[in-house]
Amino acid sequence: MAEKTSYDFEVTPQEVDFTLRMTVPSLVGAVLDTAGVDARRKGFGIDELNKDNVSWVLSRMALEIDERPRQYAPYRIETWVNEFNRMLTTRNFMLLDADGRPFGRAVTQWCVIDLEARRAIDLTALAAMCADKIVDAPSPMEKPRKLAAIVPSDSREHRVVYSDIDFNRHVNTLRYVGMMFDMLPFERHLAARPMRFDIHFLHECSYGQLLGVGCEERGAETLFEISCEGRAAVRAALAWR
Amino acid sequence: MAEKTSYDFEVTPQEVDFTLRMTVPSLVGAVLDTAGVDARRKGFGIDELNKDNVSWVLSRMALEIDERPRQYAPYRIETWVNEFNRMLTTRNFMLLDADGRPFGRAVTQWCVIDLEARRAIDLTALAAMCADKIVDAPSPMEKPRKLAAIVPSDSREHRVVYSDIDFNRHVNTLRYVGMMFDMLPFERHLAARPMRFDIHFLHECSYGQLLGVGCEERGAETLFEISCEGRAAVRAALAWR
Repeated sequence: MAEKTSYDFEVTPQEVDFTLRMTVPSLVGAVLDTAGVDARRKGFGIDELNKDNVSWVLSRMALEIDERPRQYAPYRIETWVNEFNRMLTTRNFMLLDADGRPFGRAVTQWCVIDLEARRAIDLTALAAMCADKIVDAPSPMEKPRKLAAIVPSDSREHRVVYSDIDFNRHVNTLRYVGMMFDMLPFERHLAARPMRFDIHFLHECSYGQLLGVGCEERGAETLFEISCEGRAAVRAALAWR
Repeated sequence: MAEKTSYDFEVTPQEVDFTLRMTVPSLVGAVLDTAGVDARRKGFGIDELNKDNVSWVLSRMALEIDERPRQYAPYRIETWVNEFNRMLTTRNFMLLDADGRPFGRAVTQWCVIDLEARRAIDLTALAAMCADKIVDAPSPMEKPRKLAAIVPSDSREHRVVYSDIDFNRHVNTLRYVGMMFDMLPFERHLAARPMRFDIHFLHECSYGQLLGVGCEERGAETLFEISCEGRAAVRAALAWR
């Protein structure tokens, strides 16, 4: 059985907003970079998988942030994989401040896709290969929730540009999260309230495509749906505490 | 007399494009983060200046990139301030790969503005205070060039959103650079040619304003101008070698 591993960071000026606190998209970026670096260090990173013409794809993510860290604050991300099934693997994260106090946590679920067929593959063989990398510790929060379609009360259009795309030529997760947070009323960014964010990736969007970004206020939640050529591509829910 | 200082980095997955090389906006971000961290460490950072209700503002930047570093590549940024005059101070950068070979360099010119009046102040007093922080070494490349108005052959509109703004509630430098690179034909991002990029900031743009992003091909250069409410706000020139 493996142990949790941890990585140390410091909030940079480029990662904060006008409240001088790290933005949620930047926090998502730090979590995903940690996943990439940790998988690579343990021998099952994207570079290793690409040799077999397959790659990791993020399927779902849930993130809780109690308090966004301030500019230049040191912080630590602990990560561990605790589950492998036929379709998905679960990677967990705990975000800790300089005193070791948790200020956030995340659960991500990943599949592996065949880069030719663009279809998810069975993880049984990979799970066997990674058995000694599994950490026997529960996820730090409830797993990503099911997200239904929304009835948008507000929407915007966005043409996918160079800055939006990742190594795969698809829209980067951080950009989707940014597009969603850009829909919120400005005052919402001033209130430093604890939040939970759930996001699901249904369909990939590519360079040049026209996206529709919709949002709906439903009770204490803001729901989002990004669609591409008439199909729902990403859904998310932001719940304030 | 002070010495050059250096900071070590590693290219993260979020900083690369589909060529798996670090994007120019990410390189600009690393250079500006280095400026912020180094100024802070030496006692003349934004946090220190803000106590007197003044702040650093980037006025001009010139950047040469011979080769963009690959994902996960370690690299180093050396920085030094070598000039202070009444209106501007010059901060320089050398970008070095793991073997200490330069792959890029930059020269930035900064002014200090009064945060109330939003006007540049005389730097004589600050220069005296920082005299022992000046490094007696020349800039590593020709300083930022003069940039004239353009006759755009292509243009786009962009409404300033939350993701675009910095701690000052003005559009972040990286976002301006991103908007410019997004105007380039897609094939241009594939060609890993050495380049020089000059950028001037003329006027600040704020949340909610509508920007016009124009570009013009002139000889071996691509010229850019971002305007805001009829005024030129940012000009840039990208020259390929």
